Amino acid sequence: MFIRFAVTADLHFSGSITPDIALAVESAVAEANEVVFRRGVPADAPDEQIGRITEWHADGSVVTLRIESGPYTRAHDALFRFRKLIAPVLGRHRLGLREIAVRRFTVTVPGHVPDEAVPKVPFIREVVRHGESVELELACTAADLEDRVPDRIVRLIEEKKEAALFGGKAEHWELVYESQKRPRIYAGNPTEEMLARGWLRHGASRGQWIYAPQAVRLFRALEEIVVEEIIRPLGFVEMIFPKFVPWEVWIRSGHAKGVYPEIYYVSTPKTRDPAYWEDIADTFKVTGEVPVDRIRDRLDGPIGGMCYAQCPPFWPFVQGETLANDCLPIRVFDRSGTSHRYESGGIHGIERVDEFHRIEVLWLGTADQTVETADRLHEAYRRVFDDLLELEWRSAKVTPWFMAQEGLVGESASADIGTRDYEAYLPYSDSWLEFQNVSVNGDKYPKGFTVKIQSGADCWSGCSGIGLERWTAAFLAQKGLEPAAWPEAVIRRVGEMPEIFRFL
Amino acid sequence: MFIRFAVTADLHFSGSITPDIALAVESAVAEANEVVFRRGVPADAPDEQIGRITEWHADGSVVTLRIESGPYTRAHDALFRFRKLIAPVLGRHRLGLREIAVRRFTVTVPGHVPDEAVPKVPFIREVVRHGESVELELACTAADLEDRVPDRIVRLIEEKKEAALFGGKAEHWELVYESQKRPRIYAGNPTEEMLARGWLRHGASRGQWIYAPQAVRLFRALEEIVVEEIIRPLGFVEMIFPKFVPWEVWIRSGHAKGVYPEIYYVSTPKTRDPAYWEDIADTFKVTGEVPVDRIRDRLDGPIGGMCYAQCPPFWPFVQGETLANDCLPIRVFDRSGTSHRYESGGIHGIERVDEFHRIEVLWLGTADQTVETADRLHEAYRRVFDDLLELEWRSAKVTPWFMAQEGLVGESASADIGTRDYEAYLPYSDSWLEFQNVSVNGDKYPKGFTVKIQSGADCWSGCSGIGLERWTAAFLAQKGLEPAAWPEAVIRRVGEMPEIFRFL
Ligand SMILES: Nc1ncnc2c1ncn2[C@@H]1O[C@H](COP(=O)(O)OP(=O)(O)OP(=O)(O)O)[C@@H](O)[C@H]1O
Ligand SMILES: Nc1ncnc2c1ncn2[C@@H]1O[C@H](COP(=O)(O)OP(=O)(O)OP(=O)(O)O)[C@@H](O)[C@H]1O
Ligand SMILES: [Mg+2]
Ligand SMILES: [Mg+2]
Ligand SMILES: [Zn+2]
Ligand SMILES: [Zn+2]
Repeated sequence: MFIRFAVTADLHFSGSITPDIALAVESAVAEANEVVFRRGVPADAPDEQIGRITEWHADGSVVTLRIESGPYTRAHDALFRFRKLIAPVLGRHRLGLREIAVRRFTVTVPGHVPDEAVPKVPFIREVVRHGESVELELACTAADLEDRVPDRIVRLIEEKKEAALFGGKAEHWELVYESQKRPRIYAGNPTEEMLARGWLRHGASRGQWIYAPQAVRLFRALEEIVVEEIIRPLGFVEMIFPKFVPWEVWIRSGHAKGVYPEIYYVSTPKTRDPAYWEDIADTFKVTGEVPVDRIRDRLDGPIGGMCYAQCPPFWPFVQGETLANDCLPIRVFDRSGTSHRYESGGIHGIERVDEFHRIEVLWLGTADQTVETADRLHEAYRRVFDDLLELEWRSAKVTPWFMAQEGLVGESASADIGTRDYEAYLPYSDSWLEFQNVSVNGDKYPKGFTVKIQSGADCWSGCSGIGLERWTAAFLAQKGLEPAAWPEAVIRRVGEMPEIFRFL
Repeated sequence: MFIRFAVTADLHFSGSITPDIALAVESAVAEANEVVFRRGVPADAPDEQIGRITEWHADGSVVTLRIESGPYTRAHDALFRFRKLIAPVLGRHRLGLREIAVRRFTVTVPGHVPDEAVPKVPFIREVVRHGESVELELACTAADLEDRVPDRIVRLIEEKKEAALFGGKAEHWELVYESQKRPRIYAGNPTEEMLARGWLRHGASRGQWIYAPQAVRLFRALEEIVVEEIIRPLGFVEMIFPKFVPWEVWIRSGHAKGVYPEIYYVSTPKTRDPAYWEDIADTFKVTGEVPVDRIRDRLDGPIGGMCYAQCPPFWPFVQGETLANDCLPIRVFDRSGTSHRYESGGIHGIERVDEFHRIEVLWLGTADQTVETADRLHEAYRRVFDDLLELEWRSAKVTPWFMAQEGLVGESASADIGTRDYEAYLPYSDSWLEFQNVSVNGDKYPKGFTVKIQSGADCWSGCSGIGLERWTAAFLAQKGLEPAAWPEAVIRRVGEMPEIFRFL
């Protein structure tokens, strides 16, 4: 059993296919089947697996072809090879090829294809199940075929079959390190106590907080520890990554494969001419309400979304470049703004919010340099969590994000590539919270953004997202809100808690 | 000539208006005209300017009224006063009021109303010009009338007449301070030279930069000067304001009156169920393109926009509160993220970008405290620009933003309220650039968000937006890109310029 493709297509020419022209077509068909379609095909490939024109006829100015193939010179590839062959032949008869109209295109995939592995795309017109295979009839134009839509559908079926297999299983999770236990000195829910003490208040939107001076003082103390104890000693320098992310970036970073349910989408005005918007403003002034439905029709996009993963918008900085050997590894970080995710409902604490603050650490270089930088980061983090913050925490190898996005739950192919989650124990809920992670992403980003290294070595990259809300939630859940009980490294940096607001 | 309102409305009751019930209506009409509609009206108001039921009749279960008024007890107010009066009267006859159907509503505005002063709202069904007045027929439901739509339309006409008068005039601009001239040591366009030196690169979206370590080093040096020389000495403490802004906030801050042409609009997924998005992800995987048109239909909103003015999302922190006297003035600042504006096309330099970074300084207290804080800020800024950055700059009183938004160009009513722009000279273009401003906003925000002071004094607020891109553009345009030529306060903080990337 092998995969099979079949296409029936009409080639429209600019004039009649007279009997002597038909003879020329005849011999082109023979040449295609015997020579052209065999190019690049392994010598031992069985004949029936190679693309072949199995039928053709001419009617008026139209040549209709039927091409069938297995995995070699797939029917649609064969179609375009034939186009290339026939065009100059008929050109000699003063006929031009006007258009290729696809009448029917089918792919027959061997083996069992469960329903959930059939891609949900408008291209799939019909699905017919035979005993040992599934036949898909595709609605593809010639342009879609040339764009290799059938091949991507086949690949997607494979991915979905694999994801369906994993379906029931748990995410990969493998303990790497576990800290010592720490005395339980606090059992409260830190967000609730922060609220009670006025360290923060709800923002106007869901999953959003306004942080009062006390919370910010703690954030900044933790940030200072990150900078002084991790970032600076390891030689990372600050950049500013953009915070609005256009599709273009997520297409290259791979996020466009699956991030849709969680995006805060962004759209722009069709024009910034004030006259275009006057009636909207007037309506607000008259009704006190923003006419959202009328605004919707005046926007372009969505053209992308608000920052989701923080490092993708860095990559256009190096896109298309070749990095000199001697500047590697590149080590940078960004802390210039917010990340936004449409998280599942019922968000309450600061540990899962829609708008959060993160220091993103990013590095790139050869595979060795990338893995070594990750290792040094792991060491530095460990020192900070064990010695400075005195946390009860653990780290574990988990399914890397770019696999999770495809619905996969295993480990990555290479042992060096993958994500390590850092988790802290939350006494108040007797659970563990991922408060940051470190990923070695292999060549994923450099490939997506075509970044090369002078030496020709593979370019790899890694990143680590330090969530300030999550660090704070973990720290306070274990240490409580009384600064007196905090480790010295934090007390020293927090100083006296600012008490600014007093409400009646 | 005075403003006139007229309404014809049907009051639908739950049963027939029998002759004896009609008598009760008759006497209610008399009571309304003689007593109820006169309540609250100045004693010297001429009769013809007061709301009056000029006609009524009953037919089946419907009472039809015609009410006319001038500016006192306007026809629509009179209608609802009458409703309140008639309901218990007919209730005694076991008739309930089911519905009020507005047949016709007109407003006649005296004087000349130019076309551009007629609000662009769907409520205006017809505009008829008489010699000395304009009659507007409105399509309003009873709910719209009760919601005071006609009054807001009238007020909006006044605003628009005023704005139209200002139309031709220039914005208000009045010099307050002018620094000494400085030697011209550089005539280049700093953005171009920054690009050439690799201090920044274009981001993937319009008006967006990715800042390399060198640019960030300068940003952070300037930020440090702001913090050490201005913010900390004046007692401002750091908060974190949200960066996504829902309509609710802009409705209260007044931005919903006019910010539409420049917003980066934000929408959320209708659901975060992955199954709902599977076909979108699959389509991307098969075509390599994000199906934007299909995504559009699956979004809620726009529910608001990305941060535009930075201080409005602070205000829910104090919304509905009364501030203790002894905690005033409150002085805070935020530097936690980006601002986004859809600026006019052809954006090139860092001085006018779609995505920028700003330190927002905000204070509130009594009127005196607010004005005094602004004055101290002005002093501190002046010292920084004159003594530390050695800039050629000036400041000027300008039309405050909340007036500019209504299309007005004058000064604010109170001399204490308003905006002062800080401008720096750009030698390369022989022009002046607004690089920051200071506004005393009066009670605008505290009113919008209902914030009070314990003493009962009016609560005022002020804010100052320090644009890092603009500071940098101004500084580099005057000083050039060679750190050796910079003032000592900057050199010391920048240290050695990090050179991280080397491209082939
Ligand atoms: N909703 C959120 N609220 C606060 N911080 C978050 C949130 N989502 C992610 N982060 C922070 O960003 C870091 C990296 O993001 P990542 O995408 O790995 O998180 P995640 O796997 O989605 O986390 P989770 O599984 O808890 O949702 C996290 O370790 C955390 O510190
Ligand atoms: N497009 C922009 N790019 C960079 N900085 C900006 C931009 N718009 C505003 N800022 C910064 O924010 C500060 C306050 O914003 P404000 O709304 O007063 O600016 P503005 O009046 O719109 O400026 P302009 O008239 O130049 O557009 C400005 O003084 C400037 O520092
Ligand atoms: Mg998550
Ligand atoms: Mg502007
Ligand atoms: Zn990352
Ligand atoms: Zn402001």
